[in-house]
Amino acid sequence: MPTGTPAPLLRDASQPLATQLADRFALRIRERLLLPGARLPSVRDCARQHGVSPHTVVAAYDQLQAAGLLEARRQRGFFVRDSRPTPARATARPAGSMPRQAPMDATALIRGMFEADAARSPGLGTLPADWLDPTLLQTALRRLHTSEGLPVQVSYGDPSGDLRLRTALTQRLGDLGIHTSPAHLLTTNGATHALDLIIRTQLQPGDAVLIDDPGWAIMFARLSQAGIRLLPVPRAPNGAPGPDLAVLAALAAEHAPRAYLTVSVLHNPTGHSLDLATAHQVLRLADAHDFFIVEDDSYGFLAPEHLPRLAALDGLRRVIYVSGFSKVLTPAWRVGYLATTPERLQVLTDTKLLDGLTSSPVMERAVALCLEQGRLRRHAQRLRERLATARGRIAALATRHGFQWAAPPDGLFGWLDVGVDTERLAQPLLDAGWLTAPGALFSATRQPGSLMRINMATSQDPAFWHCLRQCVDTSRGPRTGPA
Amino acid sequence: MPTGTPAPLLRDASQPLATQLADRFALRIRERLLLPGARLPSVRDCARQHGVSPHTVVAAYDQLQAAGLLEARRQRGFFVRDSRPTPARATARPAGSMPRQAPMDATALIRGMFEADAARSPGLGTLPADWLDPTLLQTALRRLHTSEGLPVQVSYGDPSGDLRLRTALTQRLGDLGIHTSPAHLLTTNGATHALDLIIRTQLQPGDAVLIDDPGWAIMFARLSQAGIRLLPVPRAPNGAPGPDLAVLAALAAEHAPRAYLTVSVLHNPTGHSLDLATAHQVLRLADAHDFFIVEDDSYGFLAPEHLPRLAALDGLRRVIYVSGFSKVLTPAWRVGYLATTPERLQVLTDTKLLDGLTSSPVMERAVALCLEQGRLRRHAQRLRERLATARGRIAALATRHGFQWAAPPDGLFGWLDVGVDTERLAQPLLDAGWLTAPGALFSATRQPGSLMRINMATSQDPAFWHCLRQCVDTSRGPRTGPA
Repeated sequence: MPTGTPAPLLRDASQPLATQLADRFALRIRERLLLPGARLPSVRDCARQHGVSPHTVVAAYDQLQAAGLLEARRQRGFFVRDSRPTPARATARPAGSMPRQAPMDATALIRGMFEADAARSPGLGTLPADWLDPTLLQTALRRLHTSEGLPVQVSYGDPSGDLRLRTALTQRLGDLGIHTSPAHLLTTNGATHALDLIIRTQLQPGDAVLIDDPGWAIMFARLSQAGIRLLPVPRAPNGAPGPDLAVLAALAAEHAPRAYLTVSVLHNPTGHSLDLATAHQVLRLADAHDFFIVEDDSYGFLAPEHLPRLAALDGLRRVIYVSGFSKVLTPAWRVGYLATTPERLQVLTDTKLLDGLTSSPVMERAVALCLEQGRLRRHAQRLRERLATARGRIAALATRHGFQWAAPPDGLFGWLDVGVDTERLAQPLLDAGWLTAPGALFSATRQPGSLMRINMATSQDPAFWHCLRQCVDTSRGPRTGPA
Repeated sequence: MPTGTPAPLLRDASQPLATQLADRFALRIRERLLLPGARLPSVRDCARQHGVSPHTVVAAYDQLQAAGLLEARRQRGFFVRDSRPTPARATARPAGSMPRQAPMDATALIRGMFEADAARSPGLGTLPADWLDPTLLQTALRRLHTSEGLPVQVSYGDPSGDLRLRTALTQRLGDLGIHTSPAHLLTTNGATHALDLIIRTQLQPGDAVLIDDPGWAIMFARLSQAGIRLLPVPRAPNGAPGPDLAVLAALAAEHAPRAYLTVSVLHNPTGHSLDLATAHQVLRLADAHDFFIVEDDSYGFLAPEHLPRLAALDGLRRVIYVSGFSKVLTPAWRVGYLATTPERLQVLTDTKLLDGLTSSPVMERAVALCLEQGRLRRHAQRLRERLATARGRIAALATRHGFQWAAPPDGLFGWLDVGVDTERLAQPLLDAGWLTAPGALFSATRQPGSLMRINMATSQDPAFWHCLRQCVDTSRGPRTGPA
């Protein structure tokens, strides 16, 4: 590749450069963009392409060799290994399946979600497909261009988003106590795009930003890519459901952060929802230290409506509210939105225009049709009831197998403590067919630990719990195994 | 707004800071996010918020007053003017219409497109809605979730894009002589998103980039926002259809640019398509000066397939190919894509994931259904024939009214020379109901001039040409009017 260079590696990121480089190649190999037998660039070429020392490249290639992804051929260089299962390993696996690597980083976890068989993915971050409502989705698509006033030949649509959707959203937000008008709302290609627009317009490289830890791996990666200094805020001690306010205050006093990114309702991965007192204290700290808050309410539909949102207390002064429909309706439509002051919306809308013009008015109208007449609300109510049943079932399974929760499961997730390093468990579990989400993926500093996120919809198979118990016991060694 | 600041103004941009600031407020006023009667921030506050001197703010507010958007109230500050038409002006306009401002910048032009009545928008950048094929679109949406194998409960989809679409695209690209596999392709939320991903991953602030001038205003704005130094490449002398190769070579030698962004087929706004010799020379210059090329083929479906693409000559070594379906199918579905080497796709895909996860597999499958079995190709053929008829009609109208073309109209656009400053014509034309695209909008340095872009689909009304003639003559004054 004579011209063009890859995106620079991040020198102040939490991961060493060699690990970042290794992760990049690992992704491409798993994605089969680097096919078995392909030769990797020479150490010297790779070092030049990525602007790192040859020593870093050697370390990265070593890691890839250790992971079984590369092989060195004497005098010839490094080659992608043929990853077809050896006969011995293949017998332990369902016919036709390929050996998989346990997720090593955020994008790997996301990619795993795209590829995974949901029924065998206790680590999934969304509802599995069979929990979505095909009638609701199909009906909305069918009604799109009928009497609903969206001509088939609609053009780009409104840069702020479909007015019908924004109108329906003001109603939804009003139910949450967040009083807006369509002029406060901007639609996006999913909630992640909303967060991206906020990072691009409201933050600058070098800014310090408070962020929940544990939290969402994609957001750690996106902020690091933007050159933001992460200030991880742990959960409160003694299992209280929210951030550790003392640490939050100390970090704010020391680092003068620009913002705090948080999930206030059904926090990923702990399932925590803020109580009123904590929400009030968070806002007081924001006032005292003059930072703004990005409230990611992606899981909000899976929670009762009476739970407090920071945006409701604050009236959108310091809080930018972000949400979407991937967790309740479908991830495939890619519709999200944010709510903030018209002043802030100015640069957000202009940046949305420059980065891709509008978002799809077709998908937005389809969401509007789902929201109207209470259809989505009824679907969400059914989901909540079904999730409650699943949580009860899973609580029993966890107890029966001797596991404990770090937090009481709520919404879609439980935060399970298995007592041994969950990152080391991930590969044997995957070899047995189970895609899990080890706690290190939710740590801003990639700290390994004994926690893992459990999806309440996809972890109901007793076989998973049996397998997990076995893997944990094997990991502990024979002397500490079960009686 | 106590926290959060607007995106910084661009100190090295082609526009003065005061103009940039004025344009921002003008957009918000036109978008009615700043309503009539709203008070603007004090000069001191505004200067602090935008990080500019109070002098700059005063200059910006002056421009807004001159444009009729603001009024100063003694001792009280600056307020948005009530823009309801005065009775005298309203009589010259269709009932119910509002006075509009002629586009002053790129985003204003785009916004104008969203609001405009296409039948009265000779400046439109797309086909008007009534040229799209509702049956083609509606049929694809209806077949989406039937026997076509896309379950209604599809999840995020493949990060690289729907495989069925990428497979159909390899066929389309093969017809153009660009030989790819699905592993060379990444789908995006429209072609603009593809260009944005390229800017984010392949360029860095301070890089110099060659760009067609005249060219696409949104791209000038996006590159400037990214801190890129623009190197405008004029069209070849004597009306030859392509860039001025001598200037291109001289700029490349002097500035060592990283890239050249160009539209090679049905160039916007001139309608130029590269001939083989020029395409070859452009690639030789890229080799000699080691820059890569971004080939934006957004209008390609409106041209005969035999026209040469840079990517076909180059085999995707130095060329990243970008296209989409807004100009031929519908802008509402927001589906675009890029083609490049698997190596380059690595960072592009990862950045797409971080900035919004996937693009919609639903919209992508709908486009695939349009592409398959030659449906889209037949629609494009009909469009080309209809455009040829329209061009003939418009050529006659232009001649009859004494106008000349700077380039022979082709595809969707004609580049008309009216002999007087077209930016000054834009407001009287808009007052008469016609939204036009003055040449300054297509200039990287906002140079005014006597050119304007004419949309061949929306400029067929003889009343427009009559009005244009009148406005030109009025602008010239009585002595130089027509005989």
